[in-house]
Amino acid sequence: MDVMEILKAYAEEIDVVIDDSLSKLEPESLYESSEYLIKAGGKKFRPALTLLSCQAVGGKPEKALKAAAAIELTHTFSLIHDDIMDNDDTRRGKPAVHKVWGEPLAILAGDSLFAKSFELLSQSAEDNIAYERVVDALQVLTNSCINICEGQALDMAFEDTFNVTKDEYMNMIYKKTGDLITASTTIGAIMGGASSNEIQALRTYGKQIGLAFQIQDDYIDLTGDESIGKPVGSDLVEGKKTLMVVYALEKANKEDHDRLVELLEANDESIIPEAMEILEKYGAINYARSKAYDCVIESKQALSILPDSDAKDALFKLADFVFTRKS
Amino acid sequence: MDVMEILKAYAEEIDVVIDDSLSKLEPESLYESSEYLIKAGGKKFRPALTLLSCQAVGGKPEKALKAAAAIELTHTFSLIHDDIMDNDDTRRGKPAVHKVWGEPLAILAGDSLFAKSFELLSQSAEDNIAYERVVDALQVLTNSCINICEGQALDMAFEDTFNVTKDEYMNMIYKKTGDLITASTTIGAIMGGASSNEIQALRTYGKQIGLAFQIQDDYIDLTGDESIGKPVGSDLVEGKKTLMVVYALEKANKEDHDRLVELLEANDESIIPEAMEILEKYGAINYARSKAYDCVIESKQALSILPDSDAKDALFKLADFVFTRKS
Repeated sequence: MDVMEILKAYAEEIDVVIDDSLSKLEPESLYESSEYLIKAGGKKFRPALTLLSCQAVGGKPEKALKAAAAIELTHTFSLIHDDIMDNDDTRRGKPAVHKVWGEPLAILAGDSLFAKSFELLSQSAEDNIAYERVVDALQVLTNSCINICEGQALDMAFEDTFNVTKDEYMNMIYKKTGDLITASTTIGAIMGGASSNEIQALRTYGKQIGLAFQIQDDYIDLTGDESIGKPVGSDLVEGKKTLMVVYALEKANKEDHDRLVELLEANDESIIPEAMEILEKYGAINYARSKAYDCVIESKQALSILPDSDAKDALFKLADFVFTRKS
Repeated sequence: MDVMEILKAYAEEIDVVIDDSLSKLEPESLYESSEYLIKAGGKKFRPALTLLSCQAVGGKPEKALKAAAAIELTHTFSLIHDDIMDNDDTRRGKPAVHKVWGEPLAILAGDSLFAKSFELLSQSAEDNIAYERVVDALQVLTNSCINICEGQALDMAFEDTFNVTKDEYMNMIYKKTGDLITASTTIGAIMGGASSNEIQALRTYGKQIGLAFQIQDDYIDLTGDESIGKPVGSDLVEGKKTLMVVYALEKANKEDHDRLVELLEANDESIIPEAMEILEKYGAINYARSKAYDCVIESKQALSILPDSDAKDALFKLADFVFTRKS
């Protein structure tokens, strides 16, 4: 199976669990606004990681199904609230939740998904999972949720400054995006009955592909296609401090540094070619590519303690996919 | 001890747990915006219920301390998001969080409190609570969070219609406000090691005072002082469907019904005396008072299976307080 087939196979199962949970929401407007973005697609990358991690340690995937759905709900909650905060109009090529339903209901839809996420995780106990493991998984997920909030707050704080170091950027982006991917694999391992060594291995795997995932996101923005609903180079126009930008600002001479800042502050599409040129001149794009590649290598190495299996093989493929995907 | 002394004694302990948890948030702006409303005061009524319920079933209050703090954080999260949704400018006599910090950070502060709430609850396991009880408590809290979202969505949906029955009103208000009070007592009992009968008794107690609490809130708005930061009669000016309004609309003849709707739609302070007159004419205020009183009686009856104790005595006092409080 190729990666897309793997993801698709799991996505259908996850969708059933999610719909079963959300369909109980009332009134209708809350159900519809909560489910809208989930129905709009999405790769269901995180829940697939959870199910595969569970299987890679010898667990049956059914044991991690509710937890996997919980992680997708947490992810969706954060997208809905982020789009309000960032005033983004589109998501997954469709109008954002707050554009369709208004801000009050969008806030509430996010809150409902957040609550439903913890409800589903707690219901894992019904699938013959030891209570101690449910509480462990809960702690991993809550920690991720706190990190998501902190990451978004740091991201907003970075909007007003060009004094962001690579380490600060990596910390922010790990919290905002990477840690939930780490939680996806860690919780899958916990639900699968993993030993603490195995949990640690899948945590490292998740952490590394989480970092690669976000670097690739920023890379796609500079080079990729427009099918994900964002124009190429939009991060530059918005003056976003991506890893490439932060790296170039660190390496550039004063003249190029100041010019890049000027371009990033212009908020105009015409700056894209010149900004790209400065990034290329200092090797920022190659740097980001090689950083992402290192993460993928490290993620695979972490899995060496696990026996060979189809699930482990699929996790390898997903690691490569993170580095090669175009959307 | 009178009620205010009871609440104050517990509030200090709760504040320490909350500050210890929130102070770990970064960046500073997220910590400050998250803690702002908690520092602005509040009676800490819910966490006191949790600690007292724990004690009333023979548990040490330390066992429920993290859970009690968790419930206060959930309550605060919902206030912050509600104020954004309802576009309310003040809370606890001070500018609302979104007025001080802006909407994006206010959304995030709410989300952080939500996440911290579940973090604290999950950390109860460290206080020698059986994992099964932690998961039980988690399910009670998640259920409340979902109800809070549904209650708020129903409340917003009611804004556009005067066709709201008493049952629909009571369902909405129970979800929005009452269920977290029910969770406060239920979780306290769970953490205190209660039997299922005792848990059920404290659940009933919490449910009944939760209902009385909200009816009293609406009653205070019509009669009470302005020290809570809301002018007397503001619910009428805003056209809110309180129990009194819903009752009067059900009982009134066509002429009075239509006139009351007209007044409630006017959005003008001058309508208060005439609207009050119609409510009085149909006994709506007496109805609400007697309904709240019935709830208080029922709440106390539920506790009859518990042995006498200072904690039980304090829970009785809190039930009376709910009915007699002026703010």
